Amino acid sequence: MAAATRGRNVIYAQSGGVTSVINASAYGVIEAVRENQAFAGVFAGLDGINGVLEENLIDLRQEAPEAIRALRYTPAGAFGSCRRKLQDLEKNRAEFQRIIEVCAAHDVGAFLYNGGNDSMDTVAKLAAFAKAQGYPLRAIGIPKTIDNDLPVTDNCPGFGSVAKYNAVSMMEASLDTASMSRDSTKVFVLETMGRNAGWIAAATGLASRSDEEGPHLILLPEVPFDPNGFLQAVAGSVAKHGICAVTVSEGLQDDKGRFVSEVGGQDAFGHTQLGGVGQYIQELVKRETKLKVHGAVLDYCQRSARHAASATDVAQAIACGEHAVALAEQGLSGVMVTIQRTAQRPYQWALSQTDAADIANQEKVLPAEMIREDRLHITKKFRDYCLPLIQGEDEPPYENGLPAYRRMKKALAPKKLSPFKPVKGGS
Amino acid sequence: MAAATRGRNVIYAQSGGVTSVINASAYGVIEAVRENQAFAGVFAGLDGINGVLEENLIDLRQEAPEAIRALRYTPAGAFGSCRRKLQDLEKNRAEFQRIIEVCAAHDVGAFLYNGGNDSMDTVAKLAAFAKAQGYPLRAIGIPKTIDNDLPVTDNCPGFGSVAKYNAVSMMEASLDTASMSRDSTKVFVLETMGRNAGWIAAATGLASRSDEEGPHLILLPEVPFDPNGFLQAVAGSVAKHGICAVTVSEGLQDDKGRFVSEVGGQDAFGHTQLGGVGQYIQELVKRETKLKVHGAVLDYCQRSARHAASATDVAQAIACGEHAVALAEQGLSGVMVTIQRTAQRPYQWALSQTDAADIANQEKVLPAEMIREDRLHITKKFRDYCLPLIQGEDEPPYENGLPAYRRMKKALAPKKLSPFKPVKGGS
Repeated sequence: MAAATRGRNVIYAQSGGVTSVINASAYGVIEAVRENQAFAGVFAGLDGINGVLEENLIDLRQEAPEAIRALRYTPAGAFGSCRRKLQDLEKNRAEFQRIIEVCAAHDVGAFLYNGGNDSMDTVAKLAAFAKAQGYPLRAIGIPKTIDNDLPVTDNCPGFGSVAKYNAVSMMEASLDTASMSRDSTKVFVLETMGRNAGWIAAATGLASRSDEEGPHLILLPEVPFDPNGFLQAVAGSVAKHGICAVTVSEGLQDDKGRFVSEVGGQDAFGHTQLGGVGQYIQELVKRETKLKVHGAVLDYCQRSARHAASATDVAQAIACGEHAVALAEQGLSGVMVTIQRTAQRPYQWALSQTDAADIANQEKVLPAEMIREDRLHITKKFRDYCLPLIQGEDEPPYENGLPAYRRMKKALAPKKLSPFKPVKGGS
Repeated sequence: MAAATRGRNVIYAQSGGVTSVINASAYGVIEAVRENQAFAGVFAGLDGINGVLEENLIDLRQEAPEAIRALRYTPAGAFGSCRRKLQDLEKNRAEFQRIIEVCAAHDVGAFLYNGGNDSMDTVAKLAAFAKAQGYPLRAIGIPKTIDNDLPVTDNCPGFGSVAKYNAVSMMEASLDTASMSRDSTKVFVLETMGRNAGWIAAATGLASRSDEEGPHLILLPEVPFDPNGFLQAVAGSVAKHGICAVTVSEGLQDDKGRFVSEVGGQDAFGHTQLGGVGQYIQELVKRETKLKVHGAVLDYCQRSARHAASATDVAQAIACGEHAVALAEQGLSGVMVTIQRTAQRPYQWALSQTDAADIANQEKVLPAEMIREDRLHITKKFRDYCLPLIQGEDEPPYENGLPAYRRMKKALAPKKLSPFKPVKGGS
């Protein structure tokens, strides 16, 4: 198979919300291509699929070797990511056609797309389209999402690090709150990301190694929010531990399935609310309990916190990038790299692949057996699942007190085609 | 002098908002007492001065040696802190009298108070009161505040670590925002602590090592907020860099000196606002520019982020605790330990002391020469001041993927007095 790829190029592109370790996957791709020599070189799409459509291909040969090495530990999307999702083939065939033309113009034999559910939709469709056109393109997906919501794969690169950072942050803020509780703050609310799945919020539960350690309560998107039950639980925790540390997922929903963050002026108590769900929970507790409340919203800081990354996550992110190159060499297309848990004690993992179509547009939520009976915390099952994923530290090098993150030059390869004119009505 | 203290005890207590390294000062105190043997032992006040008034004295001999060692790297207040400020002597003499009684009952010859401006007020008054009463008590202040707003001392333990963590967080979130800017978020807003002084907000400016790196704008409490000028600067940054990363201090004030976070429904554009100042700035930018905005409020996470502490800060915190014991041995009272910058290149520091009364109830704000001419960023002068304070990493040990922070047993020494009855009208 390798003979069919030798001398041809790879396009690598990043998609969707970025993570602490998506560049580690890029590093894995680039290193594997350099070492295996089955492909000639790698272009990176500038701003994801946008760069492919617009023929904005970053020429990685022009990047300094130390900038390539720094990808291993630099968070966020070094080449730019995108929120652009290709439309259905029937609706916008021109986009798929354009991708093939750009690939042909630059002698590209493999397209490696580093993203989540939407991106795997693109991988599946592009693989099918290229095949139907008779163009020899291997379209391979590399999993990436802090949300950990992709099916089939045991976990997703990006999740282990956001899990570790949020658990550490909750542990630290709980200690802080406990120190102040005599005269001051008694309730602390941490809002985490995770719009439809509670994996990130649940991960903060790892900080609670004993009953007294926060988080004392976790509000998950999988559990309809019950304000009265929650307030009772807050009072119970304050009575028992002196404080209550609460994690709330941004995806918390009410009993009608509406996001609490969007319901606004319609809460159970008839009061107006603005701001995110963390703000809502803070105001609710303040008003109904009269206790002093503080809260944090980590937002992008959580998914870019490479300074507190999980070594396991970094290793898996790199390996997923390398494995995508290997799958392309083997001639596969329309598949995504998956991580399998091959042993629990000690934790061991291996890489495999699955049809990208099995991943596309699906979401794996937290299963019932990982949610405690009162639905306000995690179970041992979740702990057993998640703890291996946050193991190990992998601090970036520091220069003059700050992480030695690097930016890429992003010099583009010379264009060979005329500009792409998006079809009217296209995405 | 040592002869006068031998066999007598020390009370150490924590006060005010906690930090990543206040326990490192406690560690310095405990180790210095153990090594110097000028004092018999250390009690810690449970929840700060409350524990002294209530004779809730934690007997540190009952703590495991590894718990004492863990103070070096465990954030927040291990013995509990307090927001209680002693009233004026004239108003509430009973509190001061009670402290002397508790000290006498437990043969205490030194009171080491680890806090900020208010705590130094207590140190000064207590020293004077004890002297007037003829009780041989050495009252010594150990500086502590993330706000870095104490006069006389070059900097305060706690600040270097919060500065480093916030600069790292801004650096990471800026990279994240830049990755997403083509299709998605273009403005990121980080709210930092610092109610009256802009030191913490300014410290995020260290992340901006070049013009293109965030933060692009810093909104300081020292500079009255000008919404129109700010919005113009946001537009300018987005035009030039594709994004605008903004730091806003929680203490931002309008041109009438009112906290922007409290003005609520009275903003310059006549719209209603709730939530903190970070939320306000986010909403303002969204509404006036139509750009996509994200924002983080790190709250307690920033002042307890021991996982990202500055090694310089940790070393200074320990040394300040040790030095307080040395000053007590020397017979001083009514003073606070200070840090002096003895050389700039390479940075060197030494410890000294000043009258606690010089510190009490004063705030050192960011001087004009550290604020850029357009008043929306820092100068080289600030950079030169702050960079040495964030140098070095001092990661805590990790156990099973999380920092090995420890909680104290907090067993109390047997009481010898009847309960304290606060005087009516007292604090």
